[in-house]
Amino acid sequence: MKPGTASVLSDQSFGVRPVARLRTPFADKFGVPRQSGLVEEAEGRVEFLPEFAREDFVRGLDAFSHVWLVTWFHRSAEWTGAATVRPPRLGGNDRVGVFASRSPNRPNALGLSLVRLLAIETSPALALRVAGIDAVDGTPVLDVKPYLPWCEALPTARADWAGGAPCVREAEAVSIPPPIAERLVHGSGPEGIRTLELVRHLLRLDLQPAYQRSDAGADAGGRRTWGMTVAGWNIRWRATEDGRGVEVVEADQLRMTNDK
Amino acid sequence: MKPGTASVLSDQSFGVRPVARLRTPFADKFGVPRQSGLVEEAEGRVEFLPEFAREDFVRGLDAFSHVWLVTWFHRSAEWTGAATVRPPRLGGNDRVGVFASRSPNRPNALGLSLVRLLAIETSPALALRVAGIDAVDGTPVLDVKPYLPWCEALPTARADWAGGAPCVREAEAVSIPPPIAERLVHGSGPEGIRTLELVRHLLRLDLQPAYQRSDAGADAGGRRTWGMTVAGWNIRWRATEDGRGVEVVEADQLRMTNDK
Repeated sequence: MKPGTASVLSDQSFGVRPVARLRTPFADKFGVPRQSGLVEEAEGRVEFLPEFAREDFVRGLDAFSHVWLVTWFHRSAEWTGAATVRPPRLGGNDRVGVFASRSPNRPNALGLSLVRLLAIETSPALALRVAGIDAVDGTPVLDVKPYLPWCEALPTARADWAGGAPCVREAEAVSIPPPIAERLVHGSGPEGIRTLELVRHLLRLDLQPAYQRSDAGADAGGRRTWGMTVAGWNIRWRATEDGRGVEVVEADQLRMTNDK
Repeated sequence: MKPGTASVLSDQSFGVRPVARLRTPFADKFGVPRQSGLVEEAEGRVEFLPEFAREDFVRGLDAFSHVWLVTWFHRSAEWTGAATVRPPRLGGNDRVGVFASRSPNRPNALGLSLVRLLAIETSPALALRVAGIDAVDGTPVLDVKPYLPWCEALPTARADWAGGAPCVREAEAVSIPPPIAERLVHGSGPEGIRTLELVRHLLRLDLQPAYQRSDAGADAGGRRTWGMTVAGWNIRWRATEDGRGVEVVEADQLRMTNDK
């Protein structure tokens, strides 16, 4: 290393550009699973941009069951220079370093998602159908790489305070009243059952931001209603009266547009 | 998605910048293990740039045994637009799509390395000591993320033609004549034994570029000599006469400079 190279390096920057765009059921950040692979029903499509939309680009990818997506957190606020973040995992109060977290708010807004490859579509355009996605609809994809289990699967790796899947509810703890479930199934077209299962699975996760778990914004009954937009539906839910589960109170289908 | 957004996206590009610089034993690409984690003796240091060199940035990272490094392949030729590459794994003849490979020559020169976190150093400057590195010395690091085994360790993932560690030689198939081994140990300072083991382990991997395995450049005895620069040594080796192993024929220590 020649003297002075460090400062040259620190002034350096590189340009990256999307090679594909992700289509996912998640219209906004609220509702997005906190990591990839958590919600298998969360399917997405990696739609390659015209320049990369040739089968050659993915030749041989069908040999792999899982792929990495390097994404750009395009909906996160620009990083302000904060060295620490408050991960939901720690109740939203304790701070850890941004490089000890997977927070989208980081110096370079690079995301890393491991998804299951369901199919390579070639018509009408080149796309990957994937499961277990954890990104907002429209997320730019900068790279696709095959997952190499012989060097990347380390089941005994240590992750003390982030060591297991986030706290989930039992399926029975999520109540979707039959009339609402019916509407979700029948209003979602061929995706009907899947949409219902996706909503149910998402509500089994711990979606309420931990730092807002107080009663702020609660209704007359003392319960706060939460909302998310997923798979074209606006879903609203609240805690059950016994406080041990959640119940869906509303499901409104968004107006479908042709370009969706 | 509003009409026209796709073309806007394809014109878009994002700027990324190094947050750290990697110091590794590998002065040039030849000799670098093909994936991270293959050569545990390959230790490196992630040296944070001044802006990010505060302990806060890595607070809590000691809870993790492994970390991801998102790197920039700064020594790779600029991507020329080729949709396919010839992975060494397939003998260097068959082509696969660039998104089905981990080739450094890709549309965005983003690398992904999973390394073991040995220590967090705070003096004289903030750095991570890591093992199993697979990058050239000086590689810019764009991001550090903790490895989450509960969602990223998938030992049963399928990777048909890239399903196991690259072909390695038995330790006995690597011959380092005692005088050369002595020099490697005693000329490497406190790192002596480790340097010898690093060289031995690297030569157990299949380092000769597959597409150059012909006799081009062979010596009078019909054997070609290969070279690599590693841990401050220029190592030269060739196949043994029976063709079943390799033997080191030369080890020259590079002149050490103060700024290394």
